[in-house]
Amino acid sequence: MAPPESVPAAAALGAFVAGSRWDAIPPALRHEAKRSLLNFLGCALGVSSDPAVAAAARVMARFSGGGRATVLGRPERLDEMGASFVNALAGNLLDYDDTHLETVIHPTAPVAPPLLALVEANGHTGAELLHAFVLGAEVECRIGCAVSPGHYDRGWHITSTAGVFGAAAGCARLLGLGAVRTAHALGIAASQSAGLVENLSTAAKNVGMGNAARNGLLAALLAREGYTAAPAAIEGPLGWARAMGDVPNQERIAGGLGRSWEFARNTYKPYPAGIVFHAVIDACLELRTKVASQNIVEVSVEGDQLLLDRGNRPVRTARDCRVSIHHAAAAALVRGAAGVEEFSASALNDPTIAALREKVRAGLDESLPRGAARVSLRCADGREFAALVTQARGSAGRPLADSELDTKFRENCASAGRGMEAGRWQEAIWGLEAEADPARLLRSMGRPAPA
Amino acid sequence: MAPPESVPAAAALGAFVAGSRWDAIPPALRHEAKRSLLNFLGCALGVSSDPAVAAAARVMARFSGGGRATVLGRPERLDEMGASFVNALAGNLLDYDDTHLETVIHPTAPVAPPLLALVEANGHTGAELLHAFVLGAEVECRIGCAVSPGHYDRGWHITSTAGVFGAAAGCARLLGLGAVRTAHALGIAASQSAGLVENLSTAAKNVGMGNAARNGLLAALLAREGYTAAPAAIEGPLGWARAMGDVPNQERIAGGLGRSWEFARNTYKPYPAGIVFHAVIDACLELRTKVASQNIVEVSVEGDQLLLDRGNRPVRTARDCRVSIHHAAAAALVRGAAGVEEFSASALNDPTIAALREKVRAGLDESLPRGAARVSLRCADGREFAALVTQARGSAGRPLADSELDTKFRENCASAGRGMEAGRWQEAIWGLEAEADPARLLRSMGRPAPA
Repeated sequence: MAPPESVPAAAALGAFVAGSRWDAIPPALRHEAKRSLLNFLGCALGVSSDPAVAAAARVMARFSGGGRATVLGRPERLDEMGASFVNALAGNLLDYDDTHLETVIHPTAPVAPPLLALVEANGHTGAELLHAFVLGAEVECRIGCAVSPGHYDRGWHITSTAGVFGAAAGCARLLGLGAVRTAHALGIAASQSAGLVENLSTAAKNVGMGNAARNGLLAALLAREGYTAAPAAIEGPLGWARAMGDVPNQERIAGGLGRSWEFARNTYKPYPAGIVFHAVIDACLELRTKVASQNIVEVSVEGDQLLLDRGNRPVRTARDCRVSIHHAAAAALVRGAAGVEEFSASALNDPTIAALREKVRAGLDESLPRGAARVSLRCADGREFAALVTQARGSAGRPLADSELDTKFRENCASAGRGMEAGRWQEAIWGLEAEADPARLLRSMGRPAPA
Repeated sequence: MAPPESVPAAAALGAFVAGSRWDAIPPALRHEAKRSLLNFLGCALGVSSDPAVAAAARVMARFSGGGRATVLGRPERLDEMGASFVNALAGNLLDYDDTHLETVIHPTAPVAPPLLALVEANGHTGAELLHAFVLGAEVECRIGCAVSPGHYDRGWHITSTAGVFGAAAGCARLLGLGAVRTAHALGIAASQSAGLVENLSTAAKNVGMGNAARNGLLAALLAREGYTAAPAAIEGPLGWARAMGDVPNQERIAGGLGRSWEFARNTYKPYPAGIVFHAVIDACLELRTKVASQNIVEVSVEGDQLLLDRGNRPVRTARDCRVSIHHAAAAALVRGAAGVEEFSASALNDPTIAALREKVRAGLDESLPRGAARVSLRCADGREFAALVTQARGSAGRPLADSELDTKFRENCASAGRGMEAGRWQEAIWGLEAEADPARLLRSMGRPAPA
């Protein structure tokens, strides 16, 4: 039964998180949690040598009270706060992670890192980790739903702003807080919620991600010490949602808790590019099997207004590549692939890709549904080819199979020079539910410090 | 000359902060900086044994990478991040610190702590500390002015939300960042700005204060490592001000930089109660010289609507006392004083004060100006007394003298059991401008760890 409307959001969520039983979590959701962690861990490992990750680890190392937690793929060991910051930032660095489509939240990156750190610092079983993660991600998505779509449209980077609640909820669970203290942790998280869309194309976005994880942990730790928050911190007249410009939909927060699961709707990205470009890439990969790129004289991409708004732009940096129709199409047609390498600086500067980018034209087809794309090619010899994709790989209607997530994980590990270990790690992640000591797995995902 | 409107706010402020010269800071402003630091240090020392401060220090101690910085009045030594968090939280804990009246920002608490920590960790002179502090506080107040009064009215705790910019600016200066990196630090701060009015009566407010200081430092440290932000992070269409609901007044941010100083308008609180109650307290302290409280049978307090909105409320906790007309009047009349002791739990439970609280009636007098109050007493023998205060002690028109700030500092030190050291500390603070090594002063403000 849904709590009555008069119950504050934080209290309803606190009771849900503290009272949840692992045996009441549906098997499909437990499995989704493992898929999400596999996907997140691969993404974070894959970018572990990125300069932005290295800089964050360097800064946090000076402010770390003991090496209790692994920084994924890196030699530093940091305290729970520092490891949460760096791992969250890394998991989402390339926007290659996961998406709750209704809210455009990337659910795992802010929530999983502090839980992984607590597992290493305090010792928890795999089932406890998965359970806390499911609950945290659920809280995050529900709070996001309550203020969508206005919240993001107004300039709030919802993965950061909602993520801090998810991190607080998951940490509260793993720390064993009761319902009341969990509610206070959520209210404290409300006073730490931040992150701006204006900053999305810069490193300041990464700071918002890291902070969501780190500050969510802090909220739970302070609530454990007796710190409190206002009962209506989330929905009150001077509280989180209204200050940010929304009248929150309370039913989306508290309705059907424990019965219906927003987190079950998580999806995974097959390509490290903006999600609106995925149908374009699918279509180009299909066309690549029929025509060699050197024969192409014109590429026409048609999609809905959102595709054009987000991706009809010049390309100057590798970051631009990930949000460019022209680059996505050209790279997929030239390389027959669309992995991390195809959106890197070397792909940006590949003369063959650059030449084909110049031949791409983007146009509107209002008849196409959201997320669909049509790509048409004209060859030097006059032949024409076209492909229409209405449901991109990885979308809700065409989810990535476990085997596809395995492949993505292996590729991410390989790009970090850890391909040899990928198989063992995969096996351990799929077996997390029965693992008594997942800290061993996490420790193995660091990197020995240079001698 | 004011920068042209086309210069982004962060760039204008970055150039101002990085380019400022100490010899161009007016002497009166240098003096105001010392007044602010004296006042802040006393407030933080005074509450150093408060359970909220102890809990924050306990949590931060586990996540501290070395004891490079003093926690004011406490035995823990923490890293710069942890000390910033605890000291900022302590300085503002009782709302006894300072106020920039137009914005209701308490300027010093979020800005000074990370600078004090950097002084201890890296070694800076007193003049460098004062200079960075003036610049940080100026940035904080200007950004607050640009979105006032709508920002606070909408639910944003402006001391936290604007404070993070001030902390970032001051730290950028002390770390020696150039104009461009300082601008990026401010843009990164925009993605960390948070804090809610809904939470003001709870410990979650303290978390917002601590985070403003701690995250401002982080913004500067990451900018030093090359982290960037969007040029229009503050004023852009999806940036800080607009996401929070305001079209910012850019002229208030960048107009007259280096010529006119918002921070010069800082004021200091003579009583640890909400600022709207100060005229009530002044009137009662004046009446106390004429009548003994046991003779009083009725107390009538009249003021403007703001006074009634903020303070016409029942009293259940010590926190309530600080925002209650009834308690403020009764305590001042009974004790002839209105210090920390008069707003403590023991004053709350003092039966004499409690009895007089019941005799206080509050009413509206629309003819009174903002901030004024009239208190009328009726005695058992029929005599009547009245006092009208139009400018409270500590208001802009009746600022606290240096000697009054000295007295407040000594009282705060005494309430922390450090009265013996107050004189030496005062002397050092007034002499900061010529001090080559202010770290010694700060270290002496800790407390030896128990043997």
